[in-house]
Amino acid sequence: MAVEEGQTTLEKNPVATPEAGQTSTSPPPQYKYSKRVLLKTILCRSDEGLGLVGQRVVVGGWVKSSKVVPLHDVPSLRTTLMTRPSQRDVSCVEIFQSRIPLFRTIFKVLNHKPTGSGSPAREGLDQTPAKPIPTKAYLQISDGSCVPSLQVLLPSSIASLSKFTSTGTSIFVEGVLKESSIEGKHKIELQVEKLLHVGFVDSNKYPLSKTRLPLDFLRNYSHFRPRTTTLASVTRIRSALTHGTHTFLQKNGFLHVNMPVITSIDSKGCSEKFHVTTHSGKEKHEALVMDDNTGNINLQAVKAAIKEKSDRIDELKRSESNRESLALAVQDLKKANELALQLETREKKHNKSSAQSGALGISDDFFHGQMYLTVSSQLHLESYANSLGSVYTIGPTFSADKSQSMKHLAEMWMVEVEIGFADLEDVMNCAEDYLKFLCQWVLDKCSSDLVFASKRIDKEVMERLQLVSSSSFEKITYTHAVKLLQEVPDKKFESKIEWGVALTEEQESYLADEMYKKPVIIYNHPKGLNPFFVRLNEDRRTGATFQVVLPKTGTLIRGSQKEERFDIISKRMNELALPREQYEWYLELQRNGTIKHSGFNLELDHMVLFSTGLTDIRDVIPFPRSYGNPRF
Amino acid sequence: MAVEEGQTTLEKNPVATPEAGQTSTSPPPQYKYSKRVLLKTILCRSDEGLGLVGQRVVVGGWVKSSKVVPLHDVPSLRTTLMTRPSQRDVSCVEIFQSRIPLFRTIFKVLNHKPTGSGSPAREGLDQTPAKPIPTKAYLQISDGSCVPSLQVLLPSSIASLSKFTSTGTSIFVEGVLKESSIEGKHKIELQVEKLLHVGFVDSNKYPLSKTRLPLDFLRNYSHFRPRTTTLASVTRIRSALTHGTHTFLQKNGFLHVNMPVITSIDSKGCSEKFHVTTHSGKEKHEALVMDDNTGNINLQAVKAAIKEKSDRIDELKRSESNRESLALAVQDLKKANELALQLETREKKHNKSSAQSGALGISDDFFHGQMYLTVSSQLHLESYANSLGSVYTIGPTFSADKSQSMKHLAEMWMVEVEIGFADLEDVMNCAEDYLKFLCQWVLDKCSSDLVFASKRIDKEVMERLQLVSSSSFEKITYTHAVKLLQEVPDKKFESKIEWGVALTEEQESYLADEMYKKPVIIYNHPKGLNPFFVRLNEDRRTGATFQVVLPKTGTLIRGSQKEERFDIISKRMNELALPREQYEWYLELQRNGTIKHSGFNLELDHMVLFSTGLTDIRDVIPFPRSYGNPRF
Repeated sequence: MAVEEGQTTLEKNPVATPEAGQTSTSPPPQYKYSKRVLLKTILCRSDEGLGLVGQRVVVGGWVKSSKVVPLHDVPSLRTTLMTRPSQRDVSCVEIFQSRIPLFRTIFKVLNHKPTGSGSPAREGLDQTPAKPIPTKAYLQISDGSCVPSLQVLLPSSIASLSKFTSTGTSIFVEGVLKESSIEGKHKIELQVEKLLHVGFVDSNKYPLSKTRLPLDFLRNYSHFRPRTTTLASVTRIRSALTHGTHTFLQKNGFLHVNMPVITSIDSKGCSEKFHVTTHSGKEKHEALVMDDNTGNINLQAVKAAIKEKSDRIDELKRSESNRESLALAVQDLKKANELALQLETREKKHNKSSAQSGALGISDDFFHGQMYLTVSSQLHLESYANSLGSVYTIGPTFSADKSQSMKHLAEMWMVEVEIGFADLEDVMNCAEDYLKFLCQWVLDKCSSDLVFASKRIDKEVMERLQLVSSSSFEKITYTHAVKLLQEVPDKKFESKIEWGVALTEEQESYLADEMYKKPVIIYNHPKGLNPFFVRLNEDRRTGATFQVVLPKTGTLIRGSQKEERFDIISKRMNELALPREQYEWYLELQRNGTIKHSGFNLELDHMVLFSTGLTDIRDVIPFPRSYGNPRF
Repeated sequence: MAVEEGQTTLEKNPVATPEAGQTSTSPPPQYKYSKRVLLKTILCRSDEGLGLVGQRVVVGGWVKSSKVVPLHDVPSLRTTLMTRPSQRDVSCVEIFQSRIPLFRTIFKVLNHKPTGSGSPAREGLDQTPAKPIPTKAYLQISDGSCVPSLQVLLPSSIASLSKFTSTGTSIFVEGVLKESSIEGKHKIELQVEKLLHVGFVDSNKYPLSKTRLPLDFLRNYSHFRPRTTTLASVTRIRSALTHGTHTFLQKNGFLHVNMPVITSIDSKGCSEKFHVTTHSGKEKHEALVMDDNTGNINLQAVKAAIKEKSDRIDELKRSESNRESLALAVQDLKKANELALQLETREKKHNKSSAQSGALGISDDFFHGQMYLTVSSQLHLESYANSLGSVYTIGPTFSADKSQSMKHLAEMWMVEVEIGFADLEDVMNCAEDYLKFLCQWVLDKCSSDLVFASKRIDKEVMERLQLVSSSSFEKITYTHAVKLLQEVPDKKFESKIEWGVALTEEQESYLADEMYKKPVIIYNHPKGLNPFFVRLNEDRRTGATFQVVLPKTGTLIRGSQKEERFDIISKRMNELALPREQYEWYLELQRNGTIKHSGFNLELDHMVLFSTGLTDIRDVIPFPRSYGNPRF
């Protein structure tokens, strides 16, 4: 996907946020923790700030786009623009840009000058030392608090404008809010009276200074990309999803617990794992190289030769004959001694490295055992559900899978929920309520971000959120789903549909997209497809699992009732040949006060994809981690 | 600290939670996500459940303590107890236990039977097959939703009681709420009519079946310890602190962002680090062992010997003499061939392992470079503050420090906050507001947990929280703090107080505990004590840092204004000889639209210590990770 970015255009705020809906004419509140006014408190009012005209404010932000024009030419510009039909969905900057040839023509006519000097083009304006024409810059700035940008009018009497017009320049300014001097998207603009702080950019080096930057280009600049409107909206939506999760779960009596990232469970068969160690790879590598280099020259042999040579010298000395032979022998001995010294040093190093390589053993590592980055916190979380009832965690999970995918990364965030004394039905209800709540929460809290996303990313994103928040989810068993899919007359699926085989993404999506046109919960999957901890159903062929499939997205939630019967879970672990010693503590739960309990997990990053309409997970995680990507 | 645990006694609920303060006589609401009533909706009403008498409910929970008595003996027990003065702070179970000798005497007198059978002692009650006396069990159960336990009355007509009385047994039962049949702590009890599910314990193996278990013993049972009242309260307080953090920050316009756990920044000098790799230590170790075992026997020499032996055999064959010599030579050759085969196999393995050891190089690791577990997300977070203004993260941080400490672990959770366009004053105000909010939040949301903590852990815990929430924090510069401490007349500090040297915990605490008796913010520390990213003050001797010191706890928050001037941060990095290439992306922030910005971090685990009165961090993290501790 190539959502165009960079000099992102301004958005009209369609739905003022409830907390900023006031239209009073009192001064906008100063943000409590920096001496400025947040742009959202100016722009996200229902009057788009018009009631604040005349107010003196301090604001800060980064330039998203800019234009320099001669100081007194605006009225004519205004007239020109006013004669154009109003384009509701295009910002004034876009109008500006599309009209540049027209403006040039107008200026030529008005000023009777060639385009090269005095033109409204950014370059060279301040580089004309002779007869500097007074100019002013229209800067569109954003501060991350909302989608729309503030139009800032900076006259050349205050500062040399050429350095301010680069995208990415930060300004912290004091000024007065006025009615916009350009007819277009903006109701108001800020006329700067005082520059408090500026952070320039080197526009040749700043990677986001160009317009129309695709998302895959932006991925190389994780540290700058939240300055783009798309990534800022993604960040706000993601933050709302996290807060919505806490709000829903806390409201429903869940306790948040922090589960360990470093774990001794290797989750065999689940996923490739990362090892955690205090032994650096470099040290180990050096130890190995050392091993390879030694051994070919034998120190003992050299020592024997030295003994032999010394004896020979003694003999030569005793015989007092042949001084030349003696000199040669002494030289020979000297060389042998040097070699021996060299070898001894090497051997010492070798022994040291062997000691190190001994220290490289697992038992000498920090945790005295093999430790991994967690693949899932579920088992640990279950122990808390087995004590406190309803619990949840939000944490990072890891997979060292080298395959590149738009849906998977090495480090992802997961919401995990576990409910004591709950069966499959309870937890399916909870998952449904949670998803509906989240969708409504994002619709309520991020309305202007969603309007932006539906314009620039996926026009159906809001409809989908509304569909989920208002539909009653369809619940069908896996067995029924297989039957339904097998009976589809006019559709050829890529994979064969067979009981006992996992449904493919295509098949799952068909149920949600084509058949029911709403979220579908598929439950009771075949035993053979389930992990060891899933509760075996009475039919002995299926387990108490479920998955929630959303239209256009696929599976977002997976969950199950857990096996609370020791003899059954124990047998299942034997069937799967799981390393018993790793799970010893977990099995103690089934042996001591075991309860029926159920839970589910939601891939938070996939929920952000669903809520933004984006399709690549690397665009919804601030600093994505994948194979061979060590930057940042 | 040895807070006694296990058969934890019942607590009177002193302050009903606001959401459960009703005293209506309508049935208590069923918990939405499991078919039962949460104990808090029964016990945390202002009438302690009395208004619910006569209601039929399903509840679930774990037995915390129990007592079996003859079915019809209660009235006399009641009378006995009623003649005792009411002890408000001791539970009925404690009264029971302390009165056992008295009861025995009473039974002896009343029943004219020896104590051995029919006594209220738990053991042997059901093992008297002849003439089984009808009994009933008083079970105190908790479900994790609140501090107080529910008294459950289970008659022996429903189940064999001996298996139910073990601490840790789970029950899921239906019954009717009645007025308590024992005068004491409880207003009501549940008379069981139907057992829906039971999870027994093997009381010989269940580690928490004994009473009076100290916290350090419980640390060995991370998976069971939240069943104790102390750890349950700690979990609830910790959950409230997390939710309070999100609530405060979201309310104040902060965006939550997920920062990476795996990072390429080695945070030189900060802390010992964990490496993240896909190369398992085991593989490497095997490769090394292989290297050590080979090399002593020379395959080339053996091959030469084989050639020699073959030649000798040929010679012997040609000469046709000495068949015995030929036979021996053939046998000799066979042995040499076997040896050669063995050596060749070993060499192949060795080569393979060498190839592997080649693959163990850093450039072939998953990320094609050395990667670590994060020590702090601050630098990454700053990039978001440099785009979006106010941001925060809550995530795990790691330190491979082997030293054991009550304040540090290998894996800890940290709240990190960063505010764009904010200076030191702004961020100090934010930190103060945040801490006050958190303390008030815990006081409001966890009142009965705090009452429990102040009884069992630290009687001043609530006062301290109130002090923080209501005090105006004292703000003093480091320079002033040094002067103040140097002038203290009647106190000898362990370390000398000298400008330029970090204050010790003792000295910091003296300011908060003795001098101001309230939270103290110390700011503007000497340049030499500060990391490279701290903004240099105009005096060029100090940086814009701060720390918040709380009474009885020490420093809970550290923060600073960040250096936004490229030339100064660049010079500072050179002074500290930091590896420039790792920070290249970070320095791009100062070169492109740099802004004044400030932030702070709070060690969440230390905040839990402060809010519970506990002193060892291993008691406030569900699964603590420390040196040499691979269990769970």
